[in-house]
Amino acid sequence: MNNLLKVDVSVRKLHHQVEGYRSITRQLGEEFSRLWMNKNNACNVVNRDLALEPPSFITEAWLAAAFTEEQKRTTEQTTELSESNTYFQEVQQADLIVITSPMYNYGMPAALKAWFDQIMRVNKTFSFDLSRGDYPIEPILSGKIVVLLSSCGEFGFSEGEERAHLNYLTGHIQLLSKYLGATDFYEVRSEYQEFADDRYEASLMKAKKDMATVVDKLSSV
Amino acid sequence: MNNLLKVDVSVRKLHHQVEGYRSITRQLGEEFSRLWMNKNNACNVVNRDLALEPPSFITEAWLAAAFTEEQKRTTEQTTELSESNTYFQEVQQADLIVITSPMYNYGMPAALKAWFDQIMRVNKTFSFDLSRGDYPIEPILSGKIVVLLSSCGEFGFSEGEERAHLNYLTGHIQLLSKYLGATDFYEVRSEYQEFADDRYEASLMKAKKDMATVVDKLSSV
Repeated sequence: MNNLLKVDVSVRKLHHQVEGYRSITRQLGEEFSRLWMNKNNACNVVNRDLALEPPSFITEAWLAAAFTEEQKRTTEQTTELSESNTYFQEVQQADLIVITSPMYNYGMPAALKAWFDQIMRVNKTFSFDLSRGDYPIEPILSGKIVVLLSSCGEFGFSEGEERAHLNYLTGHIQLLSKYLGATDFYEVRSEYQEFADDRYEASLMKAKKDMATVVDKLSSV
Repeated sequence: MNNLLKVDVSVRKLHHQVEGYRSITRQLGEEFSRLWMNKNNACNVVNRDLALEPPSFITEAWLAAAFTEEQKRTTEQTTELSESNTYFQEVQQADLIVITSPMYNYGMPAALKAWFDQIMRVNKTFSFDLSRGDYPIEPILSGKIVVLLSSCGEFGFSEGEERAHLNYLTGHIQLLSKYLGATDFYEVRSEYQEFADDRYEASLMKAKKDMATVVDKLSSV
């Protein structure tokens, strides 16, 4: 895996002087990149920062353009899709996609959903064919790995835990990752942030350890 | 219930001449309002169109402002929250909130998530108190009803059905509705849109019937 795309979305920055305002997910992302480059130093890295450069919401004109065959599009329609094309190319060229995302209000930040809404395109990320019957949609891209580095204020969001039913982040990103071409999906999560206690420290430390394990595993592929 | 807030978000409009581009959820919303006004003609209606006027993504400055006590905020911080305050006031003043939302990529449209991210505010929509232990967050608003009028391209997204595990729309909005002050939550959904067959027609017809039942029930409260 020689092409890494890292997608950041936390509104918090990394350089901030006040500790409470330092983004946990950006920290994890930076650490992941560092570990990854140590083991895969020929790797090409593309960074996409959705907080620094927020994606546009799709529009009616965008939809009309996306559902028009490429060769029949007007110049305006081609322009309408240029942002989407940029995101798509970044995804297409990556073998490993690392998404760093805090949980905002039990789901993904709106900017990350806006990025997915821009990327989910007929004949690009998915094909649609009614002759397939009741399951007409299939992903087009494949062979990639998606790693989600996430952070939650509360805790217990893993399967079988007390807030699993409130987790609209992990499963949703895992589902959409299929359309980014993910054959495999990993999540490393830090929890308890808003409690700012020992459990938070332990969770962040465990996340860093889990991340190193994922890097080791993927580097040996 | 004398104050209705209707929130629309589909990028498709209603007036469009081409049938395929007419928004189903906006259609349902218009029909709901009509039925509602027939039974509750003294009702005051506020329309919030998130496609026409897209919400801003929250930012680091927004977060800092929201977590600063009201009387300690700078002028810039107060301005930073003005959009959020507008949305909050609309929610606060409503007894009945109708959200019309298509399912985009198995969840809510990014613009709707951006609206929720703007509205979820400490000491406005939720209180945070670590003395409550492991569940420090509680809603502040109460006594409202939220009705979700939704539309999906595919089908089988209800509990127990074949795509229930892919539905990141209904449960997420129901969960966040608690923080809009919802004591009760209803969903009316139209499915099968992308199949454009008899099942789609039947589903839309059933949705309209279900909607009338909800209006009857809520009007007699």
